[in-house]
Amino acid sequence: MTTIGMVGLGNMGSGVASNLLKSGYELIAWNRSPGPVEELVAKGARRAGSPSEAFDAEVVFSMLSEDSVIEAVIVNSGALDGARAGAVHVNLSTISVSLARRLEALHQARGLGYVAAPVLGRPDVAASGGLVVLAAGAPAAVETVLPLLERFGRKVWRMGDEAARANVVKLACNFALASMIETLGEAGALAAAHGVEPRDVYDVMTEGLFASPAYKVYAELIGEQRFSPAGFAMPLGLKDVRLALQAGEEKHAPMPIASVLRDQFIAALAHGDAELDWSALAMVSRRAAGLERPS
Amino acid sequence: MTTIGMVGLGNMGSGVASNLLKSGYELIAWNRSPGPVEELVAKGARRAGSPSEAFDAEVVFSMLSEDSVIEAVIVNSGALDGARAGAVHVNLSTISVSLARRLEALHQARGLGYVAAPVLGRPDVAASGGLVVLAAGAPAAVETVLPLLERFGRKVWRMGDEAARANVVKLACNFALASMIETLGEAGALAAAHGVEPRDVYDVMTEGLFASPAYKVYAELIGEQRFSPAGFAMPLGLKDVRLALQAGEEKHAPMPIASVLRDQFIAALAHGDAELDWSALAMVSRRAAGLERPS
Amino acid sequence: MTTIGMVGLGNMGSGVASNLLKSGYELIAWNRSPGPVEELVAKGARRAGSPSEAFDAEVVFSMLSEDSVIEAVIVNSGALDGARAGAVHVNLSTISVSLARRLEALHQARGLGYVAAPVLGRPDVAASGGLVVLAAGAPAAVETVLPLLERFGRKVWRMGDEAARANVVKLACNFALASMIETLGEAGALAAAHGVEPRDVYDVMTEGLFASPAYKVYAELIGEQRFSPAGFAMPLGLKDVRLALQAGEEKHAPMPIASVLRDQFIAALAHGDAELDWSALAMVSRRAAGLERPS
Amino acid sequence: MTTIGMVGLGNMGSGVASNLLKSGYELIAWNRSPGPVEELVAKGARRAGSPSEAFDAEVVFSMLSEDSVIEAVIVNSGALDGARAGAVHVNLSTISVSLARRLEALHQARGLGYVAAPVLGRPDVAASGGLVVLAAGAPAAVETVLPLLERFGRKVWRMGDEAARANVVKLACNFALASMIETLGEAGALAAAHGVEPRDVYDVMTEGLFASPAYKVYAELIGEQRFSPAGFAMPLGLKDVRLALQAGEEKHAPMPIASVLRDQFIAALAHGDAELDWSALAMVSRRAAGLERPS
Repeated sequence: MTTIGMVGLGNMGSGVASNLLKSGYELIAWNRSPGPVEELVAKGARRAGSPSEAFDAEVVFSMLSEDSVIEAVIVNSGALDGARAGAVHVNLSTISVSLARRLEALHQARGLGYVAAPVLGRPDVAASGGLVVLAAGAPAAVETVLPLLERFGRKVWRMGDEAARANVVKLACNFALASMIETLGEAGALAAAHGVEPRDVYDVMTEGLFASPAYKVYAELIGEQRFSPAGFAMPLGLKDVRLALQAGEEKHAPMPIASVLRDQFIAALAHGDAELDWSALAMVSRRAAGLERPS
Repeated sequence: MTTIGMVGLGNMGSGVASNLLKSGYELIAWNRSPGPVEELVAKGARRAGSPSEAFDAEVVFSMLSEDSVIEAVIVNSGALDGARAGAVHVNLSTISVSLARRLEALHQARGLGYVAAPVLGRPDVAASGGLVVLAAGAPAAVETVLPLLERFGRKVWRMGDEAARANVVKLACNFALASMIETLGEAGALAAAHGVEPRDVYDVMTEGLFASPAYKVYAELIGEQRFSPAGFAMPLGLKDVRLALQAGEEKHAPMPIASVLRDQFIAALAHGDAELDWSALAMVSRRAAGLERPS
Repeated sequence: MTTIGMVGLGNMGSGVASNLLKSGYELIAWNRSPGPVEELVAKGARRAGSPSEAFDAEVVFSMLSEDSVIEAVIVNSGALDGARAGAVHVNLSTISVSLARRLEALHQARGLGYVAAPVLGRPDVAASGGLVVLAAGAPAAVETVLPLLERFGRKVWRMGDEAARANVVKLACNFALASMIETLGEAGALAAAHGVEPRDVYDVMTEGLFASPAYKVYAELIGEQRFSPAGFAMPLGLKDVRLALQAGEEKHAPMPIASVLRDQFIAALAHGDAELDWSALAMVSRRAAGLERPS
Repeated sequence: MTTIGMVGLGNMGSGVASNLLKSGYELIAWNRSPGPVEELVAKGARRAGSPSEAFDAEVVFSMLSEDSVIEAVIVNSGALDGARAGAVHVNLSTISVSLARRLEALHQARGLGYVAAPVLGRPDVAASGGLVVLAAGAPAAVETVLPLLERFGRKVWRMGDEAARANVVKLACNFALASMIETLGEAGALAAAHGVEPRDVYDVMTEGLFASPAYKVYAELIGEQRFSPAGFAMPLGLKDVRLALQAGEEKHAPMPIASVLRDQFIAALAHGDAELDWSALAMVSRRAAGLERPS
């Protein structure tokens, strides 16, 4: 019976953990705040007193919010040094490409496996086991964890032998999503400025050329200005665009659209929209066009 | 029996005209160069000696490449002054919002109907009768021509009573397409700079979040760098982005993504890519990232 | 005694005309609205009943606000057809490079001289005779008018034999000014967001590296938020940036900074700042950073 | 007799140290590579075996290249823990605003003084004692070191009581310089695309509106394409623009011009221009406009 460690039980991590528990795996879970751990314990998991305890497992999943948290919870906590021999760490978090490279080396130096497996999907999708998983790392390690990934992912993409490759693809996807949101926002502001309802434009787009899940979901959120509760909060959108820009800079790839996105996210935060869903980026265009009255 | 005039027989106009002929309508057609007229005459159309002759019809379709051509062929040629009483002019061309407004007024002053009906779809779609049509104008005029639009359009969207509204939506759609192309380009360059095949990123995107016709078509063109023959040539892409920017400026809507697109299209032209499909915009990102060796 | 025609008596044109009158030249002046003509007549000028009458002179100066006005007043009015044989037209207006080329050809076809002589300087400088003049055109024509240019210009730059060259340089200069304003705006917003007075930053800049007339004037206007009355109104700033972008597009030169400027000018107009000096562009950055409370 | 520590003897630091030595101060110097220390020892300085030894002084100057070097050499080396009681550390480096805040707190916690004193000027200016110094920090500490700053600075600006304020102003100044370079580049490319020598445009600008030291120096470098040896290398330019963007993001100030600059710097690096002076940024515009033949 495989013992699975789980580090990080936010919206996304809790969904993943629940699906693993449901499949009958033994789970030992850690989270900074106790609430989510208790919920999971009620479903049959064990509580880990520290990240290190969660790393005493054959496979450890982590789902943390950003680089600095990974640094604190996994790198500087000593968790890796005390990990069970031969353990494989599957990092589901969206992190920088450079940290992914560093983590892979840190694991390798300790004889541990490292698989980068960032996921596509919002919290409700994580809960229902329908995530898309982008997995990369040493083939043996990936093979080991593949059956587990399929417990919460409806589709697992193999992205190659270097972990960081999966992170590059994840950042490219989130960049494309942010670009789509901003594009819908500018197109809607253009329409509205000419007296055409943005929804009418979005209908034309999403019933034809752009008839895809992402466009449909976001066109509806933006068309109805339904930005709360946040499925993916504004600061996370900015974070991912920043990571894409950093990854581009590292290898000298300019990304002018991403630069525009970054500026627009910052303008959204300056307006006090940090609690809103990142689709509220579309409001930046409306305000710039004078379509929103100051409140 | 309705007599239909047709002005402009480029790739798109010829497809539309053929579908109308096939439906049994009497067609009188004009084109600047004679070749396409002859082809149509061979299929049963009559040749118009001038745009004015084509306007001696109950319904006149026009499909011309840009504002200045409309000015020359329709406004300054006197065609409107000699149009058949009560004729309805259906303008399929992608033109500026301001010219659309002016044309509507010019027709109204002469007792003529004016319907703006820009279309979505590439030439092969026009030939097969599968275009999406965005129609706007006075309701009576639109009702009159609706059966005709359905001869070459698989879907007709009613966009309201003012002709220019359809043009706004058309420009918003083409802006979104150009933004998609550039986004695919930047995402692909980011990936390639990190050693990941752009096609691998595009597969992840288009089999999930972005599983739409437009993304699939363009991801394939870009992934295979198949930019010739051009379905929609680079200068036309620049033209439509420029028209979107102008429409935005007219009503004070800034469009920073559109501004980036404009700069990238210009860089493509500077590189000598005027004959390529607008999907070759993706090469601008590759060159900026140093991923293309100078040839 | 040279007779001088003058077409266009706005803030700038009136200043130029006054300086020519003061130098003792005979002046025949036309303006769309009568007020400025009367003021000039009181100083000794004659009134022209039409642009054509003003073109019955050895040298004709024009100072009009934009391309469309030149088209109406000079090209379509027939003024050139009735111009005095051998007359030289000195166009002081800031116009598009393409119109400059067309005007040069129109004059040449009629045996008239054409000198492009756009000027640098605000209205008070025009009044005091301190403008910088950028002159280009056929050498003989330029030689003829040089003594006149020196009546209101403290410095005349010869920019070559093709008229349009002077317009390119003028647009490059105004682009640089707009870029400076936006740069001061962004630098000031950055400082203010960190609790540092923009004026303190501007002092450091303008007493050292950037100790130039333009920086000093604009840093003061922006630092004190003194945007009214407008020395050069917002829509004129947008117009000149648009002309620079068009000139760039014509020869395939992307100008990403100019694209940003265009978007920011549009945002300023959307906010209702059309009556303000173009230095109020700096407020767009402040508002985007949440530094201005909605009023 | 004040003993002065000196940490970091690159182009800039060596110039500062030489000026202090010339003024008769006792200097103990540390540098990662030994060469520059030897040169200084030959002029009368003492060699420090470690950063900590250099911090055994009444006043310590540091001039290091970036945040990560400061972290390694000053924060993580333990140098602050062993610093002489009551010492004042004057940090001349261009660093991030957030590190400046953190350093101030680290010093305060150890009873040490901290003065941020970033400088404006290229290496030759540092050598000749003509730098402009932006000084901020606790007033007593600033007062203590003011006489020393005046040994190598022709002008010392007091920027307030919080150290980070000086860093904000420094970043704003370098952002303005980079914006100027890019503006000169775009203006020059526009001109060149129309057959006008960039130098002719720059002459008009720098003998009038933009007659300032920075414009004159950089217009000459760009006009003559004299980009080597680098007074300030391309990667340093990118670094400072990145720091400005980070400082803006921290307080929610979008900086669209800075975003463009960042993309252009990255394109320069992708082209292999890392060894060139940052004024070579102007070549990015020329290449985008097709004005440079691939080599």
